[in-house]
Amino acid sequence: MPHDAPTGTRVTVLSGGVGGARFMQGLLQHLAARDPAATVTVVANTADDIWLHGLKVCPDLDTVMYTLGGGIDTARGWGRTDETWHAKEELAAYGVEPTWFGLGDRDLATHLVRTQMLDAGYPLSDVTRALCRRWQPGVELLPMSDDRVETHIVVDDADEPSGQRAIHFQEYWIRLGAQVPARAVVPVGLDAATAAPGVVDAITAADVVVLPPSNPVVSIGTIVGVREIRDALAATPAPVVGLSPIVAGAHVRGMAAQLLTGLGIEVSAAGVAEHYGSRRDGGLLDGWLVDERDAGDVARIEAAGIPCRAVPLMMTDHDATAAMAAAALELVGR
Amino acid sequence: MPHDAPTGTRVTVLSGGVGGARFMQGLLQHLAARDPAATVTVVANTADDIWLHGLKVCPDLDTVMYTLGGGIDTARGWGRTDETWHAKEELAAYGVEPTWFGLGDRDLATHLVRTQMLDAGYPLSDVTRALCRRWQPGVELLPMSDDRVETHIVVDDADEPSGQRAIHFQEYWIRLGAQVPARAVVPVGLDAATAAPGVVDAITAADVVVLPPSNPVVSIGTIVGVREIRDALAATPAPVVGLSPIVAGAHVRGMAAQLLTGLGIEVSAAGVAEHYGSRRDGGLLDGWLVDERDAGDVARIEAAGIPCRAVPLMMTDHDATAAMAAAALELVGR
Repeated sequence: MPHDAPTGTRVTVLSGGVGGARFMQGLLQHLAARDPAATVTVVANTADDIWLHGLKVCPDLDTVMYTLGGGIDTARGWGRTDETWHAKEELAAYGVEPTWFGLGDRDLATHLVRTQMLDAGYPLSDVTRALCRRWQPGVELLPMSDDRVETHIVVDDADEPSGQRAIHFQEYWIRLGAQVPARAVVPVGLDAATAAPGVVDAITAADVVVLPPSNPVVSIGTIVGVREIRDALAATPAPVVGLSPIVAGAHVRGMAAQLLTGLGIEVSAAGVAEHYGSRRDGGLLDGWLVDERDAGDVARIEAAGIPCRAVPLMMTDHDATAAMAAAALELVGR
Repeated sequence: MPHDAPTGTRVTVLSGGVGGARFMQGLLQHLAARDPAATVTVVANTADDIWLHGLKVCPDLDTVMYTLGGGIDTARGWGRTDETWHAKEELAAYGVEPTWFGLGDRDLATHLVRTQMLDAGYPLSDVTRALCRRWQPGVELLPMSDDRVETHIVVDDADEPSGQRAIHFQEYWIRLGAQVPARAVVPVGLDAATAAPGVVDAITAADVVVLPPSNPVVSIGTIVGVREIRDALAATPAPVVGLSPIVAGAHVRGMAAQLLTGLGIEVSAAGVAEHYGSRRDGGLLDGWLVDERDAGDVARIEAAGIPCRAVPLMMTDHDATAAMAAAALELVGR
């Protein structure tokens, strides 16, 4: 199929949780209207995954699955609609830690099914496919890896002899609200992780690869940290286009500043683009969308070898998000 | 302490689920009024236990713990008060079997804590002690065994080449409502099971052992099927007194008839007494209480060498149940 084929575009998206999932709602709306034969494969971050109370919890996979499958709590952005929290209350009454993770009663069923399948020997990619049989998200949803990878964040802790301590990303994000500086990000297991079945093919055979407005370090950063994925992105003939998660100097979801700053990444649309780098120079990007309010960054980003356009980047509704997706594909000629 | 000491009686109860738990509420009320220094140890049946969705569920232990700890749904007799069933609904939506077990959202927390402790290597008796730290049931609650024992029931099945099939007791009890004949009871693992720590001591050092109105086959029957427990009951100087679960020819909880009949046990207060047998002849009982409506059975039971009295045996409220407990202790001079 020539790259400029008007229909049947093979789109591969590297996604975190909430931002990525919402972006894909717009992407799917756009494709349904303009390119109904298009297929979307999602490679989701699994480095946020956490074992809680003996259950394997995969927040990004589930957020994508619930969002695209119609099960998400849209106001909260994560977890199930019509959710209750009785098991969580009872676990706290037993004095079992952690108590800060939002483990809903409906959501628990997903983790029970997943954990039982993992215990039976199925890899996470098979489990995810089984769960999606119910949710029918309209995309092929793949975990980035079937191997265990967990992002830990190094934070200051005066009680420790070293003055620092490493905590699970979820503890940093949820319990601490990402409000303390991240001194380092340690993606445990990432170096040894291999891409899940189908992931490399989805990138090398894609017509376009999209990086939605997800966290550049702990979402996109861990996905592209899988060596086979990084290699596939370098090798694919498909253009790679991204959308800035930073608008007017702030993360749209509001909590990334301390994380980026602590790692020396400038909290701006241009800063993230430079962090990813131009594909021409061995980086990731063939194109980058910034919000209109960051139009002043366009020249600097293009000077870094990354074609750039400023468009409205707030996912206020599906139409606005669909327009963002259209602009991203258009920027790289898809 | 002499056996006729008026206070500080050491009472050991062998218990199933709902009937045993309700009886103990009355027993504790009686002891609080008449013998506040008394201590109660409960040896609970664990042969109803079942692994569901990767979780270890112990219905009898939990029914005792929730009932005496104030967490039981009193109308239903099992499970938690203010319960919701969202995880169960979602498991069914995933198409995961079984769907017939009443796994509530609050209840799930207990199974999560238990399963995680078992996975970490703690025996069930330690896990039960840990769970009871929250519930404070006012008794020492021991599983009959830390070993896995599961009662299976052989039922007719025309689709099987043999014409029969063995199903888990819970499937027989809940899914089939115990409405088909039980051709055999197969307590898988019972022969190899050893008594949990503390169980043998609780029987040999007791001042009195009580069999509450629990199912004689699948509750009391499996407890006394543990060889060390059977030996301890034979050896203990304490009298063993039981209360008939059958009143006027029907099980008070209503579902035991097919089970007993299928095993050749007469569904009557006398039939169960004869099934247990007199201790004088190598059986279990030093005393047996029957309901007033079964006063006609007393002579037959006493002829079998079992001292017997007819008293009101319906656990309509705590006072009625306390009177039953008092009558049981009185029958064997405690």
